[in-house]
Amino acid sequence: MKLSSIRSACGSLRVNAPRAGGRPCGTPRRCFPGGVSNQRITVRTVSAAAGTGTSAKYSVNYGKRLEEEDFSEYDSSLGEIVHSTKEELAALQRRTPKLQPLLAIVQAGEDYTLEINKKIAGKIGFDISQVCLRKTSSEDEIIGELLKLNDDPKVSGVSLHLPPALLTSRVVNTLRPEKDVDCITDVNMGRLVQGNLNEGFVPPLAAAVLSLLQKHDASLEGKTVLLVGGEGPLKLALHCLIERNGMFVQNSHLNSNSLQSQVMHADALVLLGAESMEIPSTWVRPGAAIIRYDQTISSSSRSGLGFLTAAYRAQNVVQSCSRWLQEQQYRPWHLHPLKLQPLSPVPSDIEISRAQTPKPINQLAAEIGLLPEELEAYGRSKAKVRLSLLDRLHSRPDGKYVLVAGITPTPLGEGKSTVTIGLVQAMSAHLKLNSFACLRQPSQGPTFGVKGGAAGGGYAQVIPMEEFNLHLTGDIHAITAANNLVAAAVDARMLHEATQSDKALFKRLVPSVNGVRKFSPIQISRLQRLGIHKTDPASLTPQEVAAFSRLDLDPSKITWHRVVDTNDRFLRAITIGQASTEKGQTRETGFDIAVASEIMAILALSDNLGDMRSRLARMVVGTSRSGEPVTAEDLGVSGALAVLMKDAIKPTLMQTLEGTPVFVHAGPFANIAHGNSSVLADKLALKLVGQDGFVVTEAGFGADIGMEKFFNIKCRASGLKPNVVVLVATVRALKMHGGGPNVSAGAPLPREYIDENLSLVAGGCHSNLRKQIHIAKLFGVPVVVALNAFRTDTPAEIDLVCQIAKECGASDAVSCLHWSQGGRGSLELARAVKEAARQPTNFQFLYNTEMPLVEKIRTIAQKVYGADDVEVTPEVQRKIDYYNQQGYGSLPICMAKTHLSLSHLPDKKGAPTGFVLPIRDIRASIGAGFIYPLVGTMSTMPGLPTRPCFYDIDIDPITEEIIGLF
Amino acid sequence: MKLSSIRSACGSLRVNAPRAGGRPCGTPRRCFPGGVSNQRITVRTVSAAAGTGTSAKYSVNYGKRLEEEDFSEYDSSLGEIVHSTKEELAALQRRTPKLQPLLAIVQAGEDYTLEINKKIAGKIGFDISQVCLRKTSSEDEIIGELLKLNDDPKVSGVSLHLPPALLTSRVVNTLRPEKDVDCITDVNMGRLVQGNLNEGFVPPLAAAVLSLLQKHDASLEGKTVLLVGGEGPLKLALHCLIERNGMFVQNSHLNSNSLQSQVMHADALVLLGAESMEIPSTWVRPGAAIIRYDQTISSSSRSGLGFLTAAYRAQNVVQSCSRWLQEQQYRPWHLHPLKLQPLSPVPSDIEISRAQTPKPINQLAAEIGLLPEELEAYGRSKAKVRLSLLDRLHSRPDGKYVLVAGITPTPLGEGKSTVTIGLVQAMSAHLKLNSFACLRQPSQGPTFGVKGGAAGGGYAQVIPMEEFNLHLTGDIHAITAANNLVAAAVDARMLHEATQSDKALFKRLVPSVNGVRKFSPIQISRLQRLGIHKTDPASLTPQEVAAFSRLDLDPSKITWHRVVDTNDRFLRAITIGQASTEKGQTRETGFDIAVASEIMAILALSDNLGDMRSRLARMVVGTSRSGEPVTAEDLGVSGALAVLMKDAIKPTLMQTLEGTPVFVHAGPFANIAHGNSSVLADKLALKLVGQDGFVVTEAGFGADIGMEKFFNIKCRASGLKPNVVVLVATVRALKMHGGGPNVSAGAPLPREYIDENLSLVAGGCHSNLRKQIHIAKLFGVPVVVALNAFRTDTPAEIDLVCQIAKECGASDAVSCLHWSQGGRGSLELARAVKEAARQPTNFQFLYNTEMPLVEKIRTIAQKVYGADDVEVTPEVQRKIDYYNQQGYGSLPICMAKTHLSLSHLPDKKGAPTGFVLPIRDIRASIGAGFIYPLVGTMSTMPGLPTRPCFYDIDIDPITEEIIGLF
Repeated sequence: MKLSSIRSACGSLRVNAPRAGGRPCGTPRRCFPGGVSNQRITVRTVSAAAGTGTSAKYSVNYGKRLEEEDFSEYDSSLGEIVHSTKEELAALQRRTPKLQPLLAIVQAGEDYTLEINKKIAGKIGFDISQVCLRKTSSEDEIIGELLKLNDDPKVSGVSLHLPPALLTSRVVNTLRPEKDVDCITDVNMGRLVQGNLNEGFVPPLAAAVLSLLQKHDASLEGKTVLLVGGEGPLKLALHCLIERNGMFVQNSHLNSNSLQSQVMHADALVLLGAESMEIPSTWVRPGAAIIRYDQTISSSSRSGLGFLTAAYRAQNVVQSCSRWLQEQQYRPWHLHPLKLQPLSPVPSDIEISRAQTPKPINQLAAEIGLLPEELEAYGRSKAKVRLSLLDRLHSRPDGKYVLVAGITPTPLGEGKSTVTIGLVQAMSAHLKLNSFACLRQPSQGPTFGVKGGAAGGGYAQVIPMEEFNLHLTGDIHAITAANNLVAAAVDARMLHEATQSDKALFKRLVPSVNGVRKFSPIQISRLQRLGIHKTDPASLTPQEVAAFSRLDLDPSKITWHRVVDTNDRFLRAITIGQASTEKGQTRETGFDIAVASEIMAILALSDNLGDMRSRLARMVVGTSRSGEPVTAEDLGVSGALAVLMKDAIKPTLMQTLEGTPVFVHAGPFANIAHGNSSVLADKLALKLVGQDGFVVTEAGFGADIGMEKFFNIKCRASGLKPNVVVLVATVRALKMHGGGPNVSAGAPLPREYIDENLSLVAGGCHSNLRKQIHIAKLFGVPVVVALNAFRTDTPAEIDLVCQIAKECGASDAVSCLHWSQGGRGSLELARAVKEAARQPTNFQFLYNTEMPLVEKIRTIAQKVYGADDVEVTPEVQRKIDYYNQQGYGSLPICMAKTHLSLSHLPDKKGAPTGFVLPIRDIRASIGAGFIYPLVGTMSTMPGLPTRPCFYDIDIDPITEEIIGLF
Repeated sequence: MKLSSIRSACGSLRVNAPRAGGRPCGTPRRCFPGGVSNQRITVRTVSAAAGTGTSAKYSVNYGKRLEEEDFSEYDSSLGEIVHSTKEELAALQRRTPKLQPLLAIVQAGEDYTLEINKKIAGKIGFDISQVCLRKTSSEDEIIGELLKLNDDPKVSGVSLHLPPALLTSRVVNTLRPEKDVDCITDVNMGRLVQGNLNEGFVPPLAAAVLSLLQKHDASLEGKTVLLVGGEGPLKLALHCLIERNGMFVQNSHLNSNSLQSQVMHADALVLLGAESMEIPSTWVRPGAAIIRYDQTISSSSRSGLGFLTAAYRAQNVVQSCSRWLQEQQYRPWHLHPLKLQPLSPVPSDIEISRAQTPKPINQLAAEIGLLPEELEAYGRSKAKVRLSLLDRLHSRPDGKYVLVAGITPTPLGEGKSTVTIGLVQAMSAHLKLNSFACLRQPSQGPTFGVKGGAAGGGYAQVIPMEEFNLHLTGDIHAITAANNLVAAAVDARMLHEATQSDKALFKRLVPSVNGVRKFSPIQISRLQRLGIHKTDPASLTPQEVAAFSRLDLDPSKITWHRVVDTNDRFLRAITIGQASTEKGQTRETGFDIAVASEIMAILALSDNLGDMRSRLARMVVGTSRSGEPVTAEDLGVSGALAVLMKDAIKPTLMQTLEGTPVFVHAGPFANIAHGNSSVLADKLALKLVGQDGFVVTEAGFGADIGMEKFFNIKCRASGLKPNVVVLVATVRALKMHGGGPNVSAGAPLPREYIDENLSLVAGGCHSNLRKQIHIAKLFGVPVVVALNAFRTDTPAEIDLVCQIAKECGASDAVSCLHWSQGGRGSLELARAVKEAARQPTNFQFLYNTEMPLVEKIRTIAQKVYGADDVEVTPEVQRKIDYYNQQGYGSLPICMAKTHLSLSHLPDKKGAPTGFVLPIRDIRASIGAGFIYPLVGTMSTMPGLPTRPCFYDIDIDPITEEIIGLF
C-alpha cells in the first residue's frame, strides 16, 4: 500500500454505527475429525451478515459501552477510510464473487477492541473469526494455532491480541508476513523501515495517527512534527511514516531541557504513551495540532483512535486479500532462467546435465505461480503438484496447446523429445513466453538395457536426467504394485473358489463381525451389477449367494498379466502356481513391462481421482465360464488400487537445462495403448501458463499413430482442443523415405545419409512428409514442420525440406539446433509456433464413436494409413460381436501397428498405397476406455542384450555422482 | 549480539597494520564440472595467511593509498574490537580446529573498502572471498550468485558492495538473514528495530558510530544525543541503538528553527550524511562529542570510520559463524510436541491418525537440529535424511542405545512396535529428553492381505499411518527393481551364453567403440577375481576369453529369486522362459515378497554408500557348473544396483502422534534375515539425540531371535553398543507360557485370558520371561521389562509380573498404557529406561566369528534356545564344507527358526529343554554377510485369504481421505 492511498481516501459517507453483538468466547467448540475435541480453544466465526443483522439485539457486556457517538466522533476520516475500503472490497468481489476476506483475531483473555473490529468489519463487509486461548496458554500452543491460521487460505489477516508476556519474538514471527495486518513481524517492520511498502503493511495505529495529522492540516508537507515521549517499534514506525510523507520529525521527551523550545517551533505535536502528559498550552504555537497517541490497545480502543485503527486494520485485511488474488492472476512468469553456455563438440548427456545446477524445485514452483501448499517436494529437484490447482485456477483461460509429432521415423528415432524440450526452452527462457513441456515418464527397464535415458539430449534436456530416468516420484512403482495386486487377487480368488463351497465362500466374503454380517460398499456394487438389489446378507437366495460368491473365472480366458519395470524376457511366458500350497492350480500366463499395464493408460487418461477410481473399477481381468466379463470391482480391489495410485495421479514437476518448467506424467505404450502423457499434466500446465502461454506435449511414434491417438483418444477424453501440431522431420528419415538404403541401429550409416542428396530428400518430402502433414490437417489443426538439423545436413537440403513442407500445406517449416545450442537454437521454431497459434483452428475428430467398430478401424486405415481397406478374420469378428454385446462398441479405437511404416509392413517406407490392413487380433482396455486391434505382434516385454548398458553404470560412493547413463 | 558486548571489548593490543595485497578481480575463472565455464564471474579467495604473508609486496592500486596511520588512527576503539573478535574466533577454533569463517564480498565495479576489509580479516584471521560481477549484471544474475552463497556452508557472511541501482529489494532480501552481516535485509532491520538482537546483526556502520560516542564519554547514559540531518534505515538503526543504550535521542535538521537550541542542549552531536555540514562551534556545549557519519561507503572508507566499520562487520562474521556452530552443538531439542487428548473407547488406528495434523516435516527436522540441506522432503510428512549428517556431527557423542525386544509371542503379537513408539513419545514429549524411534519399513503386501498396517496402534503410532504403510519413500520399490534386474541379468546371460560361441560372446561383451575394444572397470574387477591380470582385451588367450565370457551358471543351482511387494502365492513356484523367443531355456524358480530380498538385508546392514556397493557386488546368485560362486559383480550389474539404491540408503524421517521424530528404514525378514531396522538410521539418530538422548529401536520376533541377531549380527556390523534392553511382555502371552490354552488368530480368546489367573501368569514368568531376561543378560546389557497392559489385566496380575521380573534379574519392570494414553501412559517405562541407561554395561558377543560354523550354531542353540545339541544332516554338512572352502566360514549366523517357541517346535511354550535342534538346510547371504541355517520351512511369500482387507480399503475422491486401513 502506498501512503498516498490513505490520503486519497475521500467521500462523505454517513457512517451509522450499529451496536455489535454476540457473546464473547462462547461455544461451540472446534471439533476435530475422529471425535477428538480440543477443549482448550473456542472459535467463533462472526459473519458480516449476522453482525449487521443482529446489531440491535445485543448490548456489549464488557469494557465501556460502545455508543453511536464513539463511532461517529471522527466520522470524516473514519468515513473516508471505511468507504474507500468497502469500495475496494466491492471491486474485488465484482471480479471474484465468492471472495470473502476473513480477519482472525487471536486473543487470550478479554479483548476490548473486539467489538470495534466487528463493527468495522460489518460495515465493510468481511468476516471476523475469533480464536480464544487460555491466558495460561504456552508458546507452543499459540504457535500451533498460528500455524493453522497461516495455512488456512480463507484467512486474509491475523491480529494478535495477547498479553505482552505471550507476544514473544517466536510467537510474533511465526505469523506469515502476508497475513500480519498489524505489522508486528520482524520482516514487516523491516519492510516499513526500508520503505518496501508494496510488500508489508502500515501499522494501523500509526496510520491512524498520521491520518489525524493530515486531517488537521492537509499541507503539513515540509512542516515539523514533534514526537514527545514513547519508544519502541511503533514510535519508529510513526517516525518513518511521517518522514516519508514529507514532514520533518523531531523527537523530544518530557525531561528534555529543550522541550519548550521544540514545542514552540513545532507545527504539530504527537504525545506518545502518556495519557496524563501535560504540556503547558502557552508553549504551543497557535493552530498546531495535538494528538494523544496511546500504545496500549485497551485504552486506545476507548478513544476514537480505536475506530480509526480498526478501519486501517480492515484496510490491511482487504489489501492482503487483494494481493492474494493478484498472486493468483495470470501474469507473465518472473522466471529465473538458467544460463546455458553450450560447448562444442557437445559433451555427453549426463555431463551436460551434471554441469548445470537445477534451481530448487520450490523456487521454480513459486516462479510459475504455484502456491506452497500445492507442492509436494520429492527431494530438491522434483515435486508433485496437487490437483487442487485446477479448482483454484478454474476461471483462468487455458494457454495454447501444441502437439509435437513426427514423420515416420528410422529405427534410430528422429528427436521429438529434444524438439519438445528445445521449443519450451526457447519460448520460456528466450522469448519470455510462459511455456510448459509435458513429457512421458520413461520405463526404467530400458535404462539398463540398450536404450539409455529418455530425458531429451544434448542441450535440450530435463535435469537432473538421472532422476528423470530412474524412480522419479514412484508412479511406475505404484502402477506395478496396483497391477500385481489385481493379479494376485485373480489367482487367489480362483484357488479359494476351487476349494470352497458356495456357503463357505459367502461366509468368508461376508464375515460375521461382532455377530453381524454386512456387505462392504464394494460388494453392494457387485450385487447391483448382478441385478440383486438387496443389502441384507441373510436375505440372499442360494442362487444369489452362488452368483455373488463365485466369479467363476475361466482360467484360459484371463487377460490380466503381471508386470515388472525390468527388461526380463524370461517372464514373457511362464507357468505359475507350481508350489504344493497352490494345489495343482497351475496356469500359463506372462509378465509385461510395467508401462504396458492398462493402469498406465488409465493414469494418462484420468481427469480426476474419482474418474481414475471408476476406470480402475471397470478394468476387465478375464471372462467367467459363462462368458461374462469380470472386473477389478468384482474382485473387490478397486478401492485399494485407487489408494495405491493416490499420489501417482499428481504430475511431477521438473525443469529443463534452462530452468523452464516440465511436467513428467504417465507413459503408456504407443502400440497397445495410446502413447501420450497425461491429460491432467496438460490441464494443469494449460492453467499455469495462462492465456498467452504455451503447453507443448509429445505423442509417441509417428504422427500416423501417436498424433492420431492424441486427437481421437486423448483429446476426446480431455475435451481439450489443440492449436498447433509441430511435425518433426530429419533429413536422414526423409532420405530413407525417398528411397535411401536401410537404416538400422548399431550399423554405420550409409553414405547417402552423410553426403548431400537432394533427390532422396525431395522424394521423402513428397511422400511421407506430405502425407503426415495431410493427416494433421484432416483434424483441422495447423502444422509447423520442425527440421531437427544434424551436422551433416547441408543448407540446400534444409532449404529444400522447408520449401516443400510449405508447399504441402505446412504453416511454416524451419530448422532447429536445440541439440547443440539449447533454446537459442529453437528460436525460429518458437516464433513459427507462436505465429501458427494465432490461426483459427477447426479441430474435429476423425470418426464418431457411435460408428460400428469395424467402420472406425476402416476410417483410420484409409484416411490415415492410406490403405485400400481392412481385412478382419472371423475370430476378430467374433470378438467384435462380443464387445458390441457387452456395450463396448462405442469406445474409440487404439491401433497397435508398427511405427516404422504408414502401413503394417515396416519395410514399406514413404507413403505406401494399394494395401489392405490385416486385423490379426483385437482386445479391449475397458478401464482405459478403448478397443485395440492388433495389426502385427507387439512385444510388451523387452529383453536384455549380451552386454546391457548396466556394465557402464556406476556411482561414485564419495561424490554420489552417477556415471554411465547417457 | 548484545550491545554490551561491544562495550565490554577491552585490552590494549598494539595493532600493526600490514599493507594488504593482491590484484582485484583477476583470474582464475570459476570452472563448472563438465567443462562449462561461466565467463561472467571471477572469484578470488584470499586466505588470511596469504593476506598477511604477502602484505609487504603490494601497494594498493586504487582509491587513497592506505597507510599505517589510517589503521591506527582510531586504534583504541579499533584495537579493542579487533582484539576481542580475534579472541572470540580463537576460542571457537580451539573447540573446532578446522573452523575458518569466510566473508563473501559481492561487488560490481570497484570496491574502495575491499582493502580495509582484507586488512581487518587478516588481523582477525578469517578469509575473504570476492565475487566480482559485471556492472551490467541483471537482477537474476546477482540473485543466482546470492543463492549459491546462501547454500554454501563455508560462507559465514555476505556483504553486498553493489551500485544502488542493483541493490533492489528483491536482491537484498534474497540474502539469508543468517549471513546478512551488514543488516540490510528487511528481516534483520525489523529485528534491530524490534530489539531482537540475538537473531539479527547490528549494522556495522551504526555500531561504529555508537562505539565512537561511547569512547568519547563512557557515561553517556541518560544524556542527550542529537542526530542532525540524514534519513532512511541506517539513521533509524542508529536511533534505535543509541536509545537502547540508555541515551535520549533527538532529531533535528539544518533548516530547523530550533536547531541552535537543540545543539546547545545536546551532550553529543551526530552529523549525518553531509560532510560539509557546518554547525557554529559557539553553539556546541563544551565537551560535547561531534561525530560525522557519512552513509556513502566510498567516503567512509577513507576515514577511520571505515576501519571501525570493517571491524564491526568482522565481528558480525565471527558471530554468524559462532551461531552456526552453536546450531550444530548438542542441545536439548526445542521440540514442539503435538497435544494428544486420548478418547475412550480408543478409536480405530486410522481415525486416531487422521485426527492429528502432523507437523510439516521440515519443521520437525529443524527442531531436531537438521540443516535444510540435509533434508530431502517427500511430500509434507516424510523426508529422507542425507548421510552427510554423519560427517557434520562426527565428533558429537552418541546417545544411549535402547533395544525393544519381546518374550516369545502369541500368534497375535504382543505390541513391541507400540511400546517402542510409546516410549519415545513419553521421553520426547513429556520428559523433554531428546529421543528417536528407529522402525522397520513394513512390506506393502500384507497391508492388503490380513495383517493391516505396522505403524504402531492406538495412541502410539507413526503418522500419517497410510504413508507409513504404503509406498513410503520408495525404498522397497527400489529394492524390487534392483533385485529383479539381477534376476533378469541371470537368465538373459544364460540364454546368450547358450546361443553364442566364446568368441562371439567376448566380442559383444567387449565391443569395439570407434575401433577400440576396452574392458569396463567392472569387467577388470572380474578378470582380477579370475586371476587374469591383463587390461588389453586383445592379449587374452582363448582360455582366458572363455573363462571371462562364460559365467557358465548351473541352472539347477541358481539361488536368486525374483521379488514382488505383493502377497502373490501363485508365484511361489513357477516355470519361466516358456516363450518361443527364449528358445526352450525354461527353468523352475520362484518369487519372494520384496522384503525377503538379500538386498533388503544389505540395506539394513550397510554403513555407507561404498559399503552398500561392495555388499551388492558380493551377492552370490548361483553356482557355476564347476562349482564356483557367481556374483552380481560377475554379472556386471553391481554399479547399476548401487545407482538404483542411491536414495534408498537414506533413512526416512517421520513423526509419532505426539510430534516426536522417527526414522523408518529397512525391514528385512526376521527368519531368513536378521529382522532389524537399519544401522544407518540408528547411527544418524544417535548423533541427532546427542549424549543425553535416547535412540529406541526394535528387533523382530521374540528376544531369542530378533535380539540375538541384533547383538550378534547388527551390532557386530555397526560397532554400536546397546545400553538397555526393553523386554515386552503381556499377561496374555505369559498365561500361554504358563500353560494356558492355545491362542490363535481369528478364534475368540479362551476365558483364562480374560479372567484373573495368577498361577498361569506366574508360570509364564518363571519360564519364558525368566529365560528371555537371562538371554539379554548373557550379552551384558541391563533389562527393563515393559508389561504392555490390556484392559482385562488385573492389578494383581500386573504386580505379579513386575515382581517376578525383578526377581529374575530385570533392572526394573513396569506396566505401560501407551495404547490408550499415548506417551503419558509410558512415563514410568521412560523413567525406568533412563535409570537403567545409567548402569555400566558390559556388552559382549555370544560367539567369536572365527569359531567353526557348526560351533556357532551350537552356541546359539544351547545358550539362547536351551537345546541340548544341534543335529546336522550330511547334506547340510556338505554345504558347510563348501562355505568353508569358499571362505565364508567366519560369517556370523542368522538362524531361521519359528518365533512361536524358544525351540524349533511352535507348540512348545514356556522355556523348553531337553531337545535337539535339527538343522534342515543351510544357506548363505554373502552380500548381507551371514550364513542362515534353516530349522523349519520358512515361507517367503505370503498369500491372500478369501476376503483380503482390500475389500474395506477405499479413498474418498473429494477429500482424499483413506478408509479401511487399520
